[in-house]
Amino acid sequence: MSSGATPVDTAVVACCQLAPTLNDPAANRELTATAVSSAAAMDADIVVLPELVSSGYCFADRAEAAASAEATDGATISLWSRLAAEHRIVIVGGFCEIGSGGEVFNSVALIDPGGLRSVYRKAHLWDAEVHVFTAGDSPPAVVPTRFGRIATLICYDLEFPEWVRIVALDGAQLLCAPVNWPAYPRPNGERPAEVVRVQANAAVNRMFIAACDRVGQERGVEWVGGSVIVDADGWPLAGGAASTEPVTLIAECRLADALNKAISANNDVHADRRPELYGRVAEPSNTAATG
Amino acid sequence: MSSGATPVDTAVVACCQLAPTLNDPAANRELTATAVSSAAAMDADIVVLPELVSSGYCFADRAEAAASAEATDGATISLWSRLAAEHRIVIVGGFCEIGSGGEVFNSVALIDPGGLRSVYRKAHLWDAEVHVFTAGDSPPAVVPTRFGRIATLICYDLEFPEWVRIVALDGAQLLCAPVNWPAYPRPNGERPAEVVRVQANAAVNRMFIAACDRVGQERGVEWVGGSVIVDADGWPLAGGAASTEPVTLIAECRLADALNKAISANNDVHADRRPELYGRVAEPSNTAATG
Repeated sequence: MSSGATPVDTAVVACCQLAPTLNDPAANRELTATAVSSAAAMDADIVVLPELVSSGYCFADRAEAAASAEATDGATISLWSRLAAEHRIVIVGGFCEIGSGGEVFNSVALIDPGGLRSVYRKAHLWDAEVHVFTAGDSPPAVVPTRFGRIATLICYDLEFPEWVRIVALDGAQLLCAPVNWPAYPRPNGERPAEVVRVQANAAVNRMFIAACDRVGQERGVEWVGGSVIVDADGWPLAGGAASTEPVTLIAECRLADALNKAISANNDVHADRRPELYGRVAEPSNTAATG
Repeated sequence: MSSGATPVDTAVVACCQLAPTLNDPAANRELTATAVSSAAAMDADIVVLPELVSSGYCFADRAEAAASAEATDGATISLWSRLAAEHRIVIVGGFCEIGSGGEVFNSVALIDPGGLRSVYRKAHLWDAEVHVFTAGDSPPAVVPTRFGRIATLICYDLEFPEWVRIVALDGAQLLCAPVNWPAYPRPNGERPAEVVRVQANAAVNRMFIAACDRVGQERGVEWVGGSVIVDADGWPLAGGAASTEPVTLIAECRLADALNKAISANNDVHADRRPELYGRVAEPSNTAATG
């Protein structure tokens, strides 16, 4: 565990790839408490937990999700806040959130020793989530912490480079992304496609990314189990292969690297953007081929 | 070679990874003529050539580049136009362009049997290119062809997902990208980083990408030789490993796949974008870490 009041150059990042139990928040709290304490014992400074680890994922409908949902002052966030304070760490975890109007959100909390720092609600919903969750409509937060600026996004959000760019331009040195990547076939010898996209997102922004996946089965659904921590060049420091087992990945991340966007004597991945040209985005076209 | 006046579902795409000679456009025309005819004999419908294949890359300065530059009615484009007509194919190649005001551009031409269809000038310049070339400031063209809609970008342009998104939203089924990827160290067993980013660009847009790299040495510089053709899921159909040898990659591409952006019962990689949120892009921040 790092200490001191000034920003540190290096942080130990952990991803706890777990198998939560659907509709059993109490059991899942136990699971995360054990995992976080174990990661802290391995000197982790920042611990990332999977998407919806408080509740499981495969809800039949919104009502079922609501029964496992918690407010931001509920038992799960309270537990994680106690753990963050006890171990002097940052915890980023996905949870099933109940809104003040009864809406259900697929959310991620960032908690440090001072308590809850941000809640981000997934803005890009995957498949049947559209029948369960209300999509978030706020930009993702980038939180200054003792270890540097940390952003949070959730799973399918990562497939939208525009969305990732927003947190990178806001100075995120580390993007922590709870995910539940569904398992699909892929060519032999290939890394999971989601990992490839994480690598690209990191490299084009010179930003570290820690994506924490889950394992286990729910109602016939399986996941990739492809948790990965990549550096600012997009190379995996830990994980990145498919797995069916719970595991804690650990990587020492020189987060100060992400403050330097230069990639040649004359290039800087952010300064080289030409936003004055990007505004002219065409609408999707189905123009027939000719010629 | 496909035939018929209606759009076709499948096209054979070739990347001719070559070793052009610096400052010798006549020799490079010979080289490309041989390569294009050879690819056509392998039933290629669309042939992609490297960045600046007309001239080589490592110019000392703008004056040297200008001496090898050609207008869009010059000998190189004229040759490629004859070849495209003779073989009834599309040719996409990088060339050193002289502008009407004497500017030098790093450009790509798209030519079909009817002649020159588009010229795009690289908008994101790499390293010493800033001392040689004038950056383009026009959006990339997407050209309807007999084989579907084809877009062109050049090398470092691919590192800007916003720029790639523009052609994808304009209906590009295949993005042809002449590149000169400079060789850098990478971890053992890893695919070249540029290939990883091509894969991601393809997958998040469900668009084929053919990136044609070069080999050879110029003034001490070497290239990755990582030409690759990826499908609409981002998986390599041909190439993708580093190489020092000239090679012609060939892949049959079901370009009709790129017309379907659905990736689940409820998801579409383009319709799921939330541009109303993306407008709020923050400016780069160097806020010090606190907390």
